[in-house]
Parts: sequence; C-alpha cells; structure tokens
Amino acid sequence: MYVGIDLGGTNIAAGLVNENCEILRKDSVPTLPGRGPEAVVADMASLVMRLVPEDFLREGGIRSVGIGSPGSVDSAAGVITFAANLGFVNLPLCEALASRLPGLPVYAENDANAAALGESLAGAASGHSSAICVTVGTGIGCGIIIGGKIYSGCNGAAGEAGHHVIVYGGKPCTCGRLGCWESYASATGLIALTKEAMETHPDSRMRQIAEQRGKVSGRTAFDAMRDGDKAGREVVELYTRYLACGLANLVNIFQPEIICLGGGISNEGENLLAPLREMTERECFKTGGTPAVLRRAVLGNDAGIIGAAMLRR
Amino acid sequence: MYVGIDLGGTNIAAGLVNENCEILRKDSVPTLPGRGPEAVVADMASLVMRLVPEDFLREGGIRSVGIGSPGSVDSAAGVITFAANLGFVNLPLCEALASRLPGLPVYAENDANAAALGESLAGAASGHSSAICVTVGTGIGCGIIIGGKIYSGCNGAAGEAGHHVIVYGGKPCTCGRLGCWESYASATGLIALTKEAMETHPDSRMRQIAEQRGKVSGRTAFDAMRDGDKAGREVVELYTRYLACGLANLVNIFQPEIICLGGGISNEGENLLAPLREMTERECFKTGGTPAVLRRAVLGNDAGIIGAAMLRR
Repeated sequence: MYVGIDLGGTNIAAGLVNENCEILRKDSVPTLPGRGPEAVVADMASLVMRLVPEDFLREGGIRSVGIGSPGSVDSAAGVITFAANLGFVNLPLCEALASRLPGLPVYAENDANAAALGESLAGAASGHSSAICVTVGTGIGCGIIIGGKIYSGCNGAAGEAGHHVIVYGGKPCTCGRLGCWESYASATGLIALTKEAMETHPDSRMRQIAEQRGKVSGRTAFDAMRDGDKAGREVVELYTRYLACGLANLVNIFQPEIICLGGGISNEGENLLAPLREMTERECFKTGGTPAVLRRAVLGNDAGIIGAAMLRR
Repeated sequence: MYVGIDLGGTNIAAGLVNENCEILRKDSVPTLPGRGPEAVVADMASLVMRLVPEDFLREGGIRSVGIGSPGSVDSAAGVITFAANLGFVNLPLCEALASRLPGLPVYAENDANAAALGESLAGAASGHSSAICVTVGTGIGCGIIIGGKIYSGCNGAAGEAGHHVIVYGGKPCTCGRLGCWESYASATGLIALTKEAMETHPDSRMRQIAEQRGKVSGRTAFDAMRDGDKAGREVVELYTRYLACGLANLVNIFQPEIICLGGGISNEGENLLAPLREMTERECFKTGGTPAVLRRAVLGNDAGIIGAAMLRR
C-alpha cells in the first residue's frame, strides 16, 4: 500500500493507493501556502495519518509516501527547488515530511510528471512505454514518460512544454518569454481569444452566454458554437489550431506512442479531440511509421495522486 | 573494430573505428541516389571491403557495421522507412548490406541520431548522459541522447526539432508546415534573412561581399558584421534570436546537460555562441537547477561515422 499526495496551490489531496494503482480512500485539506512550508508540511503529515489506518502504519503496511508538487522538483534530493505559486524555494520537502512520518520513505516529483506517471500506469496511456501527458488548465502542464518512467531532465525541470514558443514575438507569458504555447492554448489563452472575439463581434452569442454565467470561461466559445454562433466557432477553431500546433511540435520531437490530453478543456471530449486529432496529424512530419495516438486523459485529478503514490514502487 | 557509414545525399563516407571511438581510416564515394538502392548498397559494400584489411574481415576483427542514413529509420527492423532526399521508401537497408557482407551484423539509425551518439561518446557531449545535438545546415538536424543512448521515439523518427513551429503561420517549410524553426534558423533561413536585408539595405556591405563571392551564403551577414556593417549585424542578431528561440524551447522541454551546436554555422565559433548562449539562457524557464550548457560540436562529419560505428557496441 502507498500514499500519494497531490500538493496544489489551493488544496492538498491525498489518497491511499494499492498495488493495482486503485485509490482506496481519499482526503484533502486547504493548502494555504501563505502560512509557510512548516504548517503545510504539518498538514500533509496529519492528512497521511488520517488517511491510513493506524495499525497499517504500525505494521509497515505502507511502503512509501509520494508527493506531486508544482514547480521544479529535484526528485533525487527530494527538494522543491522553485515553486512560484507556493512561494517555496529550495525546500527539502521529503526530509521535512519524513521527519513527521517516522519509518516511511518519502519521494517527490513535479505534479505534471506525477500525473503523467498515473495516466501511464493506470489511465489513458497504460500499456504504452512512451507518452506525453498535456494538462490544459490555467497554464499548460506536461509530463513526459519514456520507457515507462518519468523523464525529468538533468535538473528535474524537464517537460515545460507550455513554455515553448510557438508565436515568435507573440503575447507575453508569465515566464517572461513572448509567444509561449501556454499563452495561446491554455484555458487562459482560450478565454483571451474569446474576449477578443466578443469585442470584434458584439452581436455574438458568446456575449449573451458570458452575461448569463457572469463570466467568460473556457466553455463560452464552445457553448456558443453549439448554439450555431459563427464567431464562437471561429474562436474554437483558432484555439484548436494553436493547441494542435504545439501537439504536433511535441510529436515531431518525441514521437511518443500516446499523447494524453487532460484538464478542464478535455471535458469537451470528441468535440475538441476529433478536429484536434485531424489538425495535429496533418501538421506532423511524415515519418512512414506509426503516428502518435491522441487520447483524452481519464483519471482527472486522481492521476496526480496515483502517480505520486507510485513514484518509487 | 567497427565500421561506421555516413550515407549522405551527396557522398557515402565510411570509417574504420576502434574501441576508443577513434577513426583509423576513412574513405568515401559519391552516393548518386538516382541509381536506385541496389547500386548504392553495392557501393557501400565495396567501400567497407576497401576500408577493412582483408585478413580483418576473415578473422572476425570487425564486430559490426553501422549506417547513419537521412530520413526516418526503423532501427529495430533495419529499414529506412522514408528518406525523401534519397528517394528510398521502406528499404530493408541492413538486410541488403548484410547480404553483401557475410557474417557481419549491420545496424542503421537516422544520421542526426548517429552524429549525436558520436558527439556523446567521443565529442562535445562526452561524459554527459543527456544531450541534444543540433546541426545547422541546409536544414536543422537534431539528435537526442537520453541516458547515454539515442532516443528515437516509438517509430524511429523522433528528434525532428527542425520541424517544430516557432512562428505560427510563418514561412512555408519544406515539410508542409508554416513557421518551422528550420525555415528561420537553418543556413537556408539565414541566407533568406540576408537576401531580404540586402533588398531593404541596398548600400549594405553584404551586397559587395555577395558580389565578390558570386553568391549569398550563411557567412555573408557575419562577414559584413565583422566589417562594421550595421545591416549585417542586424541580420546576425535576428538570426541568432531565432536560433536561440528554438534552443530555449528544447531546453525547457528536455533540460539536457548539454546542447551541442554543429554544422557550417558553428564555424563562427564564439562570435555566434557567446550571444546565442546569453539569449538562450535569458529565454529559458527559471528552474532553480543547473542550466544546460551550450557547446560547439567538435567532431564535424566524423560524428556521424563514429556514432554509426558505435550503434550496437
């Protein structure tokens, strides 16, 4: 039995995971990272204790605890080197948590990498030795699986595909570059495209939908398109082309067996995936070999918990 | 002892390589791919026979022959799946050559991958377990080394980083996409930028240099810059930014220990590498970890021969 912890900017979610990558129990607490790392780590320890039957802990029924953390993680050292949204720099997270959970080995990885491992072991990429898992949310997260294992580069920070430039000199990104994939193909990027189109097409159905819901979201353009709105359809098409551009870049570079798409936007299902697949395949370098399969991630937030639990299985 | 063959569109170069990755003898013949694969393979076999002392072949002194080929290569099957510039499709190259070299195992890989392996074993990336080797010539070739081995994806075609889009909707690329890195940062891309600047700056030194040499080359703008020409310097700066953009993309995705830059353009040495390093580092995602080192490839065309020879050492 293992414990996997998904340390997020908002919540800490944890799960008790068995050998078959099944989550038996789950629990969560708010992160409140402003309290500083010590309080956060104390809450992580309490969460583990609450989740695991006491006799299990005593009797060695738990083999290890794994943590998926945002930011750059030096997994060999168990250190969060830099996590902007938690405010943690060079935090020896594994050591800190292990000191509160005597006898339990604690491992850490970047959260997107942990989620990719989860999808690769028990989700959309299971049975495949190479996969790229792209999670489209506020930003774009990306985890790389090669030979069934997380590939995290020489410093634990590989897989920042959200920060590869697809529009040279384009929109400013949070990372400081111009024209990152994330600036165009994240939910934030979609919302920006939607707002721009609402300005230039004031009669669009998008405006009504946004007014009804009280905000513009990643769904606004998709919903307008479903209502037959032309401007909405154009936003969705342009967005899908940006997303496909980056996916095709990753296919040309990696030629993985599988690309998994997760995050809120993947809830659009085949409405998004069918055209996305078609655009991506058209853009990919002709190899004469098997092309990568584009598939929706299936584990949702559980991917991170399962992957974290299985870090050193 | 091993034989490495670099099968190019113009020449077939081969070398006798020892256990220390040293080339003891080299020879080459024109490829003339229009003759078809049978004639090309026959010439490859003759080249091997010429290169290797006869008693060596008889006495099992040669362990294997490796081939670096352009295009997509299914190295497990020993088949060139698709090589546009040779006109070869689904050619069982290893089997064809082995049938002419009885008793010798024959292996094949993509040429950029073989060159990357060469640099990783005996060149600029030796001693490092991960490296990306980028060769800037007519196009941009790229070989990926992970864990000391070639990473070639699920179909042998990984590493086509030249065909990752950095300018969405930009210049048409030979691959059919718009805005590929190769269209901007290859020698061909540099020549195009130089010609454009010569149009807008008819008084530039670039025009005189091109007239003296009878053509515009990848050196024209660099030479003009050295002569104090402002327009030439602007071309070099813009070109370097495009090159840095793609390199930073690769660093953000892979976080390799080393990036090797090869090809004719790397002959500019630190004139190119110093600003390129500075631009690339500025563009890279801040990880808190060790950044990739940008280094000039040192083996030139020998990298492909050495890497091919060492394919299954």
